[in-house]
Amino acid sequence: MSKEFDLVALGELLLRLSPPGQERLANGGSFDKHVGGAELNVLTGAALCGLRTGIISKLPDNDIGMFVKNRVRFSGVSDDFLVYDRENDARVGLYYYENGAYPKKPRVVYDRRYSSFNKIALSEYHESLYKNVRCFHTSGITLALGQQTRETAIEMIKRFKENGTLISFDVNFRANLWTGDEARRTIESILPYVDIFFCSESTAKLTFKKTGKLEKMMRSFTEDYPIKVVAATQRVVHSPKVHDFGSVIYNAKDDRIYFEEPYRNIEVIDRIGSGDAYCSGVLYGLLSDPENIQRAVEYGNAASSVKNTVPGDLPTSDLAELDGIIADHKANGETFEMSR
Amino acid sequence: MSKEFDLVALGELLLRLSPPGQERLANGGSFDKHVGGAELNVLTGAALCGLRTGIISKLPDNDIGMFVKNRVRFSGVSDDFLVYDRENDARVGLYYYENGAYPKKPRVVYDRRYSSFNKIALSEYHESLYKNVRCFHTSGITLALGQQTRETAIEMIKRFKENGTLISFDVNFRANLWTGDEARRTIESILPYVDIFFCSESTAKLTFKKTGKLEKMMRSFTEDYPIKVVAATQRVVHSPKVHDFGSVIYNAKDDRIYFEEPYRNIEVIDRIGSGDAYCSGVLYGLLSDPENIQRAVEYGNAASSVKNTVPGDLPTSDLAELDGIIADHKANGETFEMSR
Amino acid sequence: MSKEFDLVALGELLLRLSPPGQERLANGGSFDKHVGGAELNVLTGAALCGLRTGIISKLPDNDIGMFVKNRVRFSGVSDDFLVYDRENDARVGLYYYENGAYPKKPRVVYDRRYSSFNKIALSEYHESLYKNVRCFHTSGITLALGQQTRETAIEMIKRFKENGTLISFDVNFRANLWTGDEARRTIESILPYVDIFFCSESTAKLTFKKTGKLEKMMRSFTEDYPIKVVAATQRVVHSPKVHDFGSVIYNAKDDRIYFEEPYRNIEVIDRIGSGDAYCSGVLYGLLSDPENIQRAVEYGNAASSVKNTVPGDLPTSDLAELDGIIADHKANGETFEMSR
Amino acid sequence: MSKEFDLVALGELLLRLSPPGQERLANGGSFDKHVGGAELNVLTGAALCGLRTGIISKLPDNDIGMFVKNRVRFSGVSDDFLVYDRENDARVGLYYYENGAYPKKPRVVYDRRYSSFNKIALSEYHESLYKNVRCFHTSGITLALGQQTRETAIEMIKRFKENGTLISFDVNFRANLWTGDEARRTIESILPYVDIFFCSESTAKLTFKKTGKLEKMMRSFTEDYPIKVVAATQRVVHSPKVHDFGSVIYNAKDDRIYFEEPYRNIEVIDRIGSGDAYCSGVLYGLLSDPENIQRAVEYGNAASSVKNTVPGDLPTSDLAELDGIIADHKANGETFEMSR
Amino acid sequence: MSKEFDLVALGELLLRLSPPGQERLANGGSFDKHVGGAELNVLTGAALCGLRTGIISKLPDNDIGMFVKNRVRFSGVSDDFLVYDRENDARVGLYYYENGAYPKKPRVVYDRRYSSFNKIALSEYHESLYKNVRCFHTSGITLALGQQTRETAIEMIKRFKENGTLISFDVNFRANLWTGDEARRTIESILPYVDIFFCSESTAKLTFKKTGKLEKMMRSFTEDYPIKVVAATQRVVHSPKVHDFGSVIYNAKDDRIYFEEPYRNIEVIDRIGSGDAYCSGVLYGLLSDPENIQRAVEYGNAASSVKNTVPGDLPTSDLAELDGIIADHKANGETFEMSR
Amino acid sequence: MSKEFDLVALGELLLRLSPPGQERLANGGSFDKHVGGAELNVLTGAALCGLRTGIISKLPDNDIGMFVKNRVRFSGVSDDFLVYDRENDARVGLYYYENGAYPKKPRVVYDRRYSSFNKIALSEYHESLYKNVRCFHTSGITLALGQQTRETAIEMIKRFKENGTLISFDVNFRANLWTGDEARRTIESILPYVDIFFCSESTAKLTFKKTGKLEKMMRSFTEDYPIKVVAATQRVVHSPKVHDFGSVIYNAKDDRIYFEEPYRNIEVIDRIGSGDAYCSGVLYGLLSDPENIQRAVEYGNAASSVKNTVPGDLPTSDLAELDGIIADHKANGETFEMSR
Repeated sequence: MSKEFDLVALGELLLRLSPPGQERLANGGSFDKHVGGAELNVLTGAALCGLRTGIISKLPDNDIGMFVKNRVRFSGVSDDFLVYDRENDARVGLYYYENGAYPKKPRVVYDRRYSSFNKIALSEYHESLYKNVRCFHTSGITLALGQQTRETAIEMIKRFKENGTLISFDVNFRANLWTGDEARRTIESILPYVDIFFCSESTAKLTFKKTGKLEKMMRSFTEDYPIKVVAATQRVVHSPKVHDFGSVIYNAKDDRIYFEEPYRNIEVIDRIGSGDAYCSGVLYGLLSDPENIQRAVEYGNAASSVKNTVPGDLPTSDLAELDGIIADHKANGETFEMSR
Repeated sequence: MSKEFDLVALGELLLRLSPPGQERLANGGSFDKHVGGAELNVLTGAALCGLRTGIISKLPDNDIGMFVKNRVRFSGVSDDFLVYDRENDARVGLYYYENGAYPKKPRVVYDRRYSSFNKIALSEYHESLYKNVRCFHTSGITLALGQQTRETAIEMIKRFKENGTLISFDVNFRANLWTGDEARRTIESILPYVDIFFCSESTAKLTFKKTGKLEKMMRSFTEDYPIKVVAATQRVVHSPKVHDFGSVIYNAKDDRIYFEEPYRNIEVIDRIGSGDAYCSGVLYGLLSDPENIQRAVEYGNAASSVKNTVPGDLPTSDLAELDGIIADHKANGETFEMSR
Repeated sequence: MSKEFDLVALGELLLRLSPPGQERLANGGSFDKHVGGAELNVLTGAALCGLRTGIISKLPDNDIGMFVKNRVRFSGVSDDFLVYDRENDARVGLYYYENGAYPKKPRVVYDRRYSSFNKIALSEYHESLYKNVRCFHTSGITLALGQQTRETAIEMIKRFKENGTLISFDVNFRANLWTGDEARRTIESILPYVDIFFCSESTAKLTFKKTGKLEKMMRSFTEDYPIKVVAATQRVVHSPKVHDFGSVIYNAKDDRIYFEEPYRNIEVIDRIGSGDAYCSGVLYGLLSDPENIQRAVEYGNAASSVKNTVPGDLPTSDLAELDGIIADHKANGETFEMSR
Repeated sequence: MSKEFDLVALGELLLRLSPPGQERLANGGSFDKHVGGAELNVLTGAALCGLRTGIISKLPDNDIGMFVKNRVRFSGVSDDFLVYDRENDARVGLYYYENGAYPKKPRVVYDRRYSSFNKIALSEYHESLYKNVRCFHTSGITLALGQQTRETAIEMIKRFKENGTLISFDVNFRANLWTGDEARRTIESILPYVDIFFCSESTAKLTFKKTGKLEKMMRSFTEDYPIKVVAATQRVVHSPKVHDFGSVIYNAKDDRIYFEEPYRNIEVIDRIGSGDAYCSGVLYGLLSDPENIQRAVEYGNAASSVKNTVPGDLPTSDLAELDGIIADHKANGETFEMSR
Repeated sequence: MSKEFDLVALGELLLRLSPPGQERLANGGSFDKHVGGAELNVLTGAALCGLRTGIISKLPDNDIGMFVKNRVRFSGVSDDFLVYDRENDARVGLYYYENGAYPKKPRVVYDRRYSSFNKIALSEYHESLYKNVRCFHTSGITLALGQQTRETAIEMIKRFKENGTLISFDVNFRANLWTGDEARRTIESILPYVDIFFCSESTAKLTFKKTGKLEKMMRSFTEDYPIKVVAATQRVVHSPKVHDFGSVIYNAKDDRIYFEEPYRNIEVIDRIGSGDAYCSGVLYGLLSDPENIQRAVEYGNAASSVKNTVPGDLPTSDLAELDGIIADHKANGETFEMSR
Repeated sequence: MSKEFDLVALGELLLRLSPPGQERLANGGSFDKHVGGAELNVLTGAALCGLRTGIISKLPDNDIGMFVKNRVRFSGVSDDFLVYDRENDARVGLYYYENGAYPKKPRVVYDRRYSSFNKIALSEYHESLYKNVRCFHTSGITLALGQQTRETAIEMIKRFKENGTLISFDVNFRANLWTGDEARRTIESILPYVDIFFCSESTAKLTFKKTGKLEKMMRSFTEDYPIKVVAATQRVVHSPKVHDFGSVIYNAKDDRIYFEEPYRNIEVIDRIGSGDAYCSGVLYGLLSDPENIQRAVEYGNAASSVKNTVPGDLPTSDLAELDGIIADHKANGETFEMSR
């Protein structure tokens, strides 16, 4: 029997304030207003590919919360699972971000503490939520934010799992939120429930103390836990404006790794959210054609690469655009300049 | 012997985020970036009149803190008394503000809790600070923010007073920060030190339980405490875009009230900070010509009225502009349209 | 048994291009990008009050169509009933609008012919649509656009009526779309199905050849047809930037008119969509408390008045803001300036 | 035999830099870029009514000069009579302007000295210029700028006059360019050549020492000189955002004054150039229907009033818009809100 | 005997709406407003080099038509040959364009059907038009738009030819307007009149079924028809932001091809119109020095390359800038960074 | 005994007007408003590193002068040494600048003649100025502007020197201000006072007629004059958007040159002021650790390279950012992408 939602995620919704163009945070007279959040970014990319998605989060019941809610809807994601914080200290977490240009790096200032999302509780959701979802996704950020979000996330993972929902988890390690040790201990406690595991090579080494070649490290996760798929992105940052992007997926079932030629010399406009866009492409691939791992790699790489070319945190490419990019990538440059 | 600073104030520095023009907080794609704060607003207006001013405050040692510091300097106020918060949770308090237009009221969303200013401590300032200032100003907002800012403010008032500094205090009652009772008890504890007291008629009634005519209420403050001057603004809000503004100052020394014909039909562009601009004009008047109360009323009214016509929290009119506005106001309209 | 949607409407979705501020269409270098449409405007206002609403319309399957769809979702209206035009000549209808300032009037240039909405057909919708809606709304514009939209609208009215759905209709006469005679003949053919009828006094006279006092004209509609409620707006345009707004509703059941003191001296920022906002307020009132006609008048007047103060076609005020405006309006000015 | 140009004028072309909206010159991060100049403003308004117009001026042969030239063309005025300054110190004169809002006045900072226009010489123009023009216009500003422009202007007036061209002159007194005495002496030297004379009541009194009622003063100019028509504007500045505008024209031929009810409560967006727009309307009236002085008053008043509602120095209303405004003005408010 | 115009072209004038920077069509809140059109682009580039140019086109008599007309004049092209559409359905054709960044391609959405240009008729032009022009240019787009524009174009080509005007034609094949077969048949019917023929290598192959090396294909056109010059651009698209550009011109008279080292690694800001800019450079070269084909190649390549670096459809480089670019290109990098 | 200021400079303050992004000077509707000036740029960079700096300059006492003063303060530089011009012809010098993109070069139009800075006189400064400064800096631009600035500069150099202040001088040769001969003669007259000399290799050759290898040329300056340090920048301009930057410093004391691997493929956003930023880094290095010439090279190169990545004339990188850039540069790419 089909479920109402293909993909639902638990995560914080952030307001991002960025100076226009290459202006700096400490100068200038305006901020562009973006909405993002690791899990929302994943959902948005998947929704553009046609999946039915919804975000589980908590927002203040004020004008800024409404702006964020409106943007969630604008991006094609359902707001059915948003709950609202009516307390006096309700707030939207935010971060300030400025672009880089070699030799200046991008800069981030976080101001997300005490946000309403930190109060999200299991009791705010009805049991029926867990029955209607094909895949549940969350990330290490949600685990790291605080005790309340961590407990909610872990409990939700368990309940979704009980209802036959696939569990997707992206480590997304952030050194400013927790230590590697705390991350490892916490994540290891949920890995028994995880089906699809996103973990970069460096995180595998530094946080999970894995050694050896990438394929070996990826396989070892599936040996230790009932993980089906491990995906690792491979980004090369030539400069803030020029990246390469590729990835490797290990599939436990056939004990194989899948990959393709990376996208090279991506013309980066805004790299924020490109890792999440990768997850969105992989999850779209796996949910729409579970046996075709190679196709999932290709959607992941295309979704991530193209996210870099668009301002804001959220993916904006629909399935047709991804298909075009993949076709061009395979055609290796022998393609038309634009369609007209 | 002359002191280095004419006017120094203790107060929080806030980032204000406003949508351009009449756009709403929950819509649109950008925010204008303003810096304000009740006490900084007062200092900026006074600096434009030629007083040497400085702000006592605490900012995070990050890009947003640097932006605020730069704007303090831009506005002509000294940043000598800024201290910096290098802790992980350092943040600039902020608020979101959208303009009104009848019948829509302006809207404010505050997000100032846990800001770095709340950690400001007496120990961060050297004793020499207290010796070099002609007048110290702070407001009820600083007392209301938290225990730490309240204690710092009260102790600074005492130390400045001991060094012969005039003490100026603006009640600036904000119902979202504290109750009327808490405000009254706290403020009454500092009134013995206050020389110049800004208190609106409604606050005198509602918070201080004064009764009777305005002059009687104002006099009673000077009878209960060694206050020299009580100033009360009188704003009539015809609509968010049309205000009248006038004020009354009671001078204890000659037991007289001073006032003038109000400014009528002010074309309001941004009313934020106009009350603080009033303080700036009055303080400029009193500090530059202490015996001339009528002149202080006129600078206060002109500074406040003209603030309404300029975007942002901070006054922008220098002494020459205020003098021109006062002259026109007295000329009652028989004036040239512009100078060219 | 409850229905899934409170209010569904059939109407064209337009892209509005306006120069910023007071710039003119024939000058300047950019356009602000708005989405509107008489029926969408109604739905958006109602959604902000808490009704579950959806728009029946047709959009091109291209980037501009996607922008419009995203904005529909942003505004809180369901996109479940949008169908997409994949033909080569698919287009979004658009109009250009510039603000006025006395003595310059606002100016409109329409470019909506041949838009995809003109191809909308009954066959694109499943019969289940008609069973799930409490109230269906459309306007004279939809009837006037062309033969195809007219037939679709009339047939939908009949099918909704058959399923017990309330029918709401706003004449919204536009001289550039049809003649008065054509309008009268067409509208008279649907009035037998209409429950709630929006028709201004001047349209009653000029188009429907009604005579006598407003109440008499309104009553006569309910005598000729089984109309339950007739609502007429009363706008006084002092200048492009200053309007008064009030209205009268005639209720057939108790043969009474309902009205209140008009809103005077509205500070108009963008008057487009304020008539539709009126419908949204009245419909919210009637659908949430059907017997309380006075309350419907008040929501209608408040929703329309406040729409004028916000850029764009779409209402932005939620129920809390409307309640505040109504309370202030009744308080007759003795109200606080803003909440902080 | 018909001439190629209806109206040609000699005057400086200025770049105007204004902060957006109500921002101040000493704040903010950008300037809007406008082009203006008293005589260009007149020509632009006349061109919009259908007259064939051209500007005699001198611009630097650099990118800023090209921008100004392009804008002259954009505004419908011929650039045939522009000459270019290729010297090292070539520059476009400029001025900075900020809007006012009561009680803040608009502010102007001029930076027009040493501009290329100051080098314009008779020798740069071929004799054929003087044969092809129905009416030549210039203003007191051109006479005041410097010796070179003054001599060029006076000599051009004489040459045009010799060729049967009507001479139009607007005093446009600017106290920052010359004294009243210098103005009077200079202008009196050209009045023997002037046919159409624009001079406000206050200038008549203060500069030309006229006394008595307006009609008497106007008539006396035509008695002293062979002036045919004297036009005087009557502006009432209620505030920077609210003006009234009317005018009086004295016609020597029938010894009569012509006027109409002023435009009241004009919603002023940008008042710069509204006096020049008045000249454009009057000159259009006189050149298109020389005997109909009343019509010239009406075009002058409408052109000036509506100019106030549009950003920038240049008129933007074509004949159809002026005709509509005049019709509404006569209809006294009983008019439709907008055309759609 | 010299003619009044050097270059006149027949073509549609389009409004281009583009989101700022790298924003997407389906996101963001504003559009930049550009004017373009293949033939106008050619004329603008030629005008900047000093040629006297004019556009033959039809615009609606509304504010958008006036904007386009004003921009035509701004760009230095004569509006003498514009005619106006006063019918109710008059419209300016438009297209939406967003920039690309690898791996995202630029995207175009056309909305140009039913535009006023489609109604342009020979009868709207006086016979004298054909006597006053040295060179007439049009493109395959004009032939493809519809029956009316095709007939007008073909008839104009013939009449100009009869009057000794050079005929220039750019194939500019657009697959969304017609098929290759229809294009070939139509264009072959006008080739007997064409002197200067712009046709890319791929179009020669795919549309005209030419085979063999480029020189051979180019020669064959001149063998089949009395064409004097065939020009083919050679663009290499490394990414949306990095192109190479060169070209080859075949001159029938001396049976030779002319070319130069391509411009490599052009920093592309906006590639729209760069092909047309190429025509403008070549036509300037051929019209100013008909025997010097090499110089025409150089102006064509420089004009096209530099167009890519400027936003909008229209060229902006005057002759001095092109000469500088050509000199630098020949100097092969050993040049100063900028002039100051 | 410590001095109050570490670094004080004499130089003009300019308003820079630039079209946004890649727009051209002759197009578009707005200018970004920047403040710069070779010497202010140096001071700003040094202030960001922690030096106490002040600018000696003269500004008009008008709104534009105040804007410039406010920006000086915003940038962390003291305005204590600004004097104001109250004459009628007071003006801020300005220049117009547009960005380049290959093959279009950046373009500059200067309009700085007759600015208030040209009137600056020694008599406006008190003798105490010369006692309080560790290092005084000025440039060839100040010498070149005019007789008055030249005399003031030379006399100040002498007086500072007499008071033991280090003298820093940047040749900054501008061909549009003076000839090479005039530059050489003038600069040679001050070289006897100079301690730190900034002179590029090409200037050494072309202006000072030096020959041989760079090291030899640099040494020869220190042989002819008591110069301690000679610094020469080495910029390679691949295109307007891609530069390399390195430098060489010759230290007379140990007769050695210091340099490091250049920064390659800098992603240039705005190259204006990057040469001055170099001086700021070198001077910070030399003033904070006089013996460590290598460190001065590194700060100079980092400060210059990173300036290119930020809009405006003024450096924006503080010491922490420079330290990070230097560390990454040494790490040769093996660094994290950003800190979060």
